[in-house]
Amino acid sequence: MGSNPKQLSIAAFMMRYGHHVAAWRHPETDLLSNPFKVFRDQVRSAERACLDAVFFADSVALTGAPSLEPLTLLSALAASTERIGLIGTATTTYNEPYTVARQFASLDLLSDGRAGWNLVTSDNAAEAANFGRDQHVAHADRYARAREFHQVVTGLWNSWDPDALEVEKSGALPYDPAKLRKLNHRGEHFAVAGPLNVARSPQGRPVVVQAGGSETGRDLAAGTAEVVFTAQPALAKAQAFYSDIKRRVVEKGRKPESVKVMPGLFAVVGRTQEEADAKFAQLQALIEPKAGLALLGRMIGNFDLSGYPLDGPLPELPPTQDGQRSRQQLLTDLAQGENLTIRQLYERIAGGRGHFTVVGTAEKVADQMQEWFEQGAADGFNFMSPALPGGLDDFLALVIPELQRRGLFRTSYTGSTLREHLGL
Amino acid sequence: MGSNPKQLSIAAFMMRYGHHVAAWRHPETDLLSNPFKVFRDQVRSAERACLDAVFFADSVALTGAPSLEPLTLLSALAASTERIGLIGTATTTYNEPYTVARQFASLDLLSDGRAGWNLVTSDNAAEAANFGRDQHVAHADRYARAREFHQVVTGLWNSWDPDALEVEKSGALPYDPAKLRKLNHRGEHFAVAGPLNVARSPQGRPVVVQAGGSETGRDLAAGTAEVVFTAQPALAKAQAFYSDIKRRVVEKGRKPESVKVMPGLFAVVGRTQEEADAKFAQLQALIEPKAGLALLGRMIGNFDLSGYPLDGPLPELPPTQDGQRSRQQLLTDLAQGENLTIRQLYERIAGGRGHFTVVGTAEKVADQMQEWFEQGAADGFNFMSPALPGGLDDFLALVIPELQRRGLFRTSYTGSTLREHLGL
Repeated sequence: MGSNPKQLSIAAFMMRYGHHVAAWRHPETDLLSNPFKVFRDQVRSAERACLDAVFFADSVALTGAPSLEPLTLLSALAASTERIGLIGTATTTYNEPYTVARQFASLDLLSDGRAGWNLVTSDNAAEAANFGRDQHVAHADRYARAREFHQVVTGLWNSWDPDALEVEKSGALPYDPAKLRKLNHRGEHFAVAGPLNVARSPQGRPVVVQAGGSETGRDLAAGTAEVVFTAQPALAKAQAFYSDIKRRVVEKGRKPESVKVMPGLFAVVGRTQEEADAKFAQLQALIEPKAGLALLGRMIGNFDLSGYPLDGPLPELPPTQDGQRSRQQLLTDLAQGENLTIRQLYERIAGGRGHFTVVGTAEKVADQMQEWFEQGAADGFNFMSPALPGGLDDFLALVIPELQRRGLFRTSYTGSTLREHLGL
Repeated sequence: MGSNPKQLSIAAFMMRYGHHVAAWRHPETDLLSNPFKVFRDQVRSAERACLDAVFFADSVALTGAPSLEPLTLLSALAASTERIGLIGTATTTYNEPYTVARQFASLDLLSDGRAGWNLVTSDNAAEAANFGRDQHVAHADRYARAREFHQVVTGLWNSWDPDALEVEKSGALPYDPAKLRKLNHRGEHFAVAGPLNVARSPQGRPVVVQAGGSETGRDLAAGTAEVVFTAQPALAKAQAFYSDIKRRVVEKGRKPESVKVMPGLFAVVGRTQEEADAKFAQLQALIEPKAGLALLGRMIGNFDLSGYPLDGPLPELPPTQDGQRSRQQLLTDLAQGENLTIRQLYERIAGGRGHFTVVGTAEKVADQMQEWFEQGAADGFNFMSPALPGGLDDFLALVIPELQRRGLFRTSYTGSTLREHLGL
């Protein structure tokens, strides 16, 4: 069982309404208070197409629109699906490791081994203000805490042997105490005795995912991640990132194939190039300037652009904190390199937010994916639907069969856990 | 829509294996690592019988056996059911209010208004040791924190108006900002800005449940709870508790019917008295003395009884902390009143752990429930199955129809939310 190393790993990065900043204004997007059934139907479609996983980002503050919380949502999706992996985000900055370890272990167990944890740190003031901090936690401190947090969580996931609950009813306990380990962790940030009170799942432990772009983020990912999500705008940069991560992974004493690098892919797919262009143009025309400015402002380090002329250049920006520096740099490079106005810049990121973006036919999208895969830029992709449900439907109906025809993607699941789908 | 005040509220208190200390040794009990499908099938049975809710207790340390974590489990159950209420426990001692508010709001929204939060404080050393504390938090501090925690959580649940997401797509935002409130809470224990990033559910907000037996616990419940779970061994004590809670509720300026008092009910049901007795005897014969001693030791304030003769009297006990004092008192009264040995005492609590216990036919169980209901001891019951699945099956198949024949329980759901089922 498991994945074929000559095939892509593909996840669907699910976002309320879709990833385009104007997705909620698209005629086919729902505005229901409860988006569960929309997500459920989309995830079932992704499962019929044999995707490795669905992925939900998170923020512990209101950003954009209210939605569902990832762990509760993924647990409900676990009961609504059979095979697809379920990756959710939980911050190490404002949680306790026992709680995160336990909730992901529980999702992993009830889904029969399909859970993944996207480990993040939180760097914005709105999030800090919901957890009694006036200021966000400094970058270096957040990463030191994150590193120790990961150590505690994975240690707790190791509490139970796989067969610890296979006991005789004539015994004294419903588990074998010799197959149970306490943790007794005492570190700088945490003291956690253990053991975890959730048994081990069929995949051993949840898959650990990360998305750090900064130096410290890459270093943490190289030491701890099994999947790295990343925003890469073009092939050359993606290749540099890919080889940098694999080099760091080897330096940490791990095998390069033990980490899957999966850039985001924002693709607008049509049966013809004209149809794809028209779909994209429809979304671009729906961008509200305030929403475009707000998105751009967030991505360059929470800088307020509302005083600057829309059709003028991006102003000189104050240096932002390390965690957002790589994204800020990417955007200022883009604006200067192509001499873009503020409006042109927010239009450029309104869909993919700096991720790899393709607008075209299934053949064109598959060509690009194949090139990145074969040229050492990606082990797979995290597909970002422009608007739900149509954008994901198009990708599943058109691009997945094209990848399957090329032998680049599975036509049926061969394993049953997320770890098996990813070949980890 | 809603409940009939002349009818009982009934929840099923779900416990891995069942409530009897030897339930896991019962021949029909499963020992699977993943108990999800067992819980799912049982909860679906409870829903077919139109129960108000299922309820899961919790501990943030290993006690008894590993199981699933309540919020993830209830979310998976939400996707597996349509109408039954879903009540889970989360401690105020080791969580952050933003996280608890958000996860319960998300469960409430994705279940279309069926969530309930059992607010507890944590008082044991094993739990403290998983959250970096060498000692549990003192009783008074825990309750002061719990009171403020409740204030923050319910404040966050009030972030969104019911129609806040009913907007035109021509607007600037996918919600109406005039229908959104920040919290800006600054108290002794928490500073939380808000708003919550989960929209309001059809029942407005999750139902708040509590189970405090101590003075401070009752006071907190009277001010904040909508349902009070309680352990009451006999009618007179249950009546005293019931009237005490209702009196306190009125003193807080609330209507007495705004709080439902629901004692636990441990019932072993047979088609004849002999069958019920035999079922109970089968479980009692499975008690392992070590397990019986450990259960008793936990319930009298974590006191180690292993050095005392099983067939001798209960020793003089050191005073325990306030949170466990009412349970300790209940058990020492019972032992002294009936001159019980240690073995007899643990056998007495091995099933119901001090809760109202009935062994008999459906008529006998229904008679007792009716008496408590009509004599001012209970608004309903939290049914504790001796062992799963048979114990709950018997109660649903035999006792529920008997209560329905008497007009004491609904024959179909009239509402769709937990709040409507409970008539709150």
